[in-house]
Amino acid sequence: MRLRHKPWAEEFIASHPDIVVPNPEEQKGKWNEVFKNDNPLHIEVGTGKGQFITGMALANPEINYIGIELFDSVIVKAVEKVQAAGQPTNLRLLKVNGSDLEKFFEKNDVDRLYLNFSDPWPKTRHAKRRLTHAGFLSIYENILPDFGEVHFKTDNRGLFEYSLVSMSQYGMKLVYVSLDLHKEMLEDNIMTEYEEKFSAKGQPIYRVEAQFQLPEVK
Amino acid sequence: MRLRHKPWAEEFIASHPDIVVPNPEEQKGKWNEVFKNDNPLHIEVGTGKGQFITGMALANPEINYIGIELFDSVIVKAVEKVQAAGQPTNLRLLKVNGSDLEKFFEKNDVDRLYLNFSDPWPKTRHAKRRLTHAGFLSIYENILPDFGEVHFKTDNRGLFEYSLVSMSQYGMKLVYVSLDLHKEMLEDNIMTEYEEKFSAKGQPIYRVEAQFQLPEVK
Repeated sequence: MRLRHKPWAEEFIASHPDIVVPNPEEQKGKWNEVFKNDNPLHIEVGTGKGQFITGMALANPEINYIGIELFDSVIVKAVEKVQAAGQPTNLRLLKVNGSDLEKFFEKNDVDRLYLNFSDPWPKTRHAKRRLTHAGFLSIYENILPDFGEVHFKTDNRGLFEYSLVSMSQYGMKLVYVSLDLHKEMLEDNIMTEYEEKFSAKGQPIYRVEAQFQLPEVK
Repeated sequence: MRLRHKPWAEEFIASHPDIVVPNPEEQKGKWNEVFKNDNPLHIEVGTGKGQFITGMALANPEINYIGIELFDSVIVKAVEKVQAAGQPTNLRLLKVNGSDLEKFFEKNDVDRLYLNFSDPWPKTRHAKRRLTHAGFLSIYENILPDFGEVHFKTDNRGLFEYSLVSMSQYGMKLVYVSLDLHKEMLEDNIMTEYEEKFSAKGQPIYRVEAQFQLPEVK
């Protein structure tokens, strides 16, 4: 889903520096200054309208969260969601590109990374744009600790099949797999907007937790 | 499915040494003598009534196949299936336990290993009996070549989720995953008896190809 460009969006975002972190490259290696504590940091790449990351922040006050979204018009919705939730102090947004994460985070800055209902980019020639392509996994590995984890859920079968193979071929190990999330684990599952829509139609939601391994000794 | 013990089954099996290999431990390291050629050998562990392995043998005459099944009364059905198919010269059966494979095969004897609709053993205390448990994977690794592959399909979601994690944790890499086999690849898919039944009901069939890696240098 891509909302149309809204000219007022940029201004709106700039006027909420307490939610959308301005100049995030200055926080690299010192995100604890933003949150004013040393709690773990979990980020979501492609946060969309923000329902997941806001729900997670409310449910887990001892963890810091950053939702990352590139599109102005979408992040505006996420800002409104954060405001409606009472602006939790453990939650921020970043308006940046997922492929630039290393500009804003260094190794060990991020303790866990979430991907939810990412764009499937179904055409083979667009495979590099999928957020579970090796190119992205390499970026995630560089900002997570050793044995850091990526938690990914989607309703898109093709993207999930691709992602399992991509993660495995990259050298990650699968820690947990569900092929019908809503049939097993509902208590602590925070649903995204898409997830509500698709699971209401009875479509299975797929989920994987995958863990980076120590780099091979060359 | 476990058919009742049939007292005549043992005699029937012994009277077909050209199909059910007698004294298979004597063939260890020299299965080419049985088939009288040096073609690759693919085996199916838990071959049931034999529809898959018989279909594969007919479809791929340049590959040798062995179907492995423990239960007398089931292997009788497989023998009958092999006979009905004209007893292909590239096909044999073994009446042995999957946990004993190393008695009959040595490293490199087997070029590929199939598991189809294996018993899910859903109770956690029975996990060791699942044919994708680490204990079995270790046996398979010892009879396959380096980078040998296990091809596994099932309709059982729980067993498939378990198997993806088990294979990955063991150190295997996933080469191919389908979460709805019959929606994508039908041409060269030989269906088992279970597969026909379950896919006719519209249930998805899951399939994975996973590859052993080189053992870690200690």
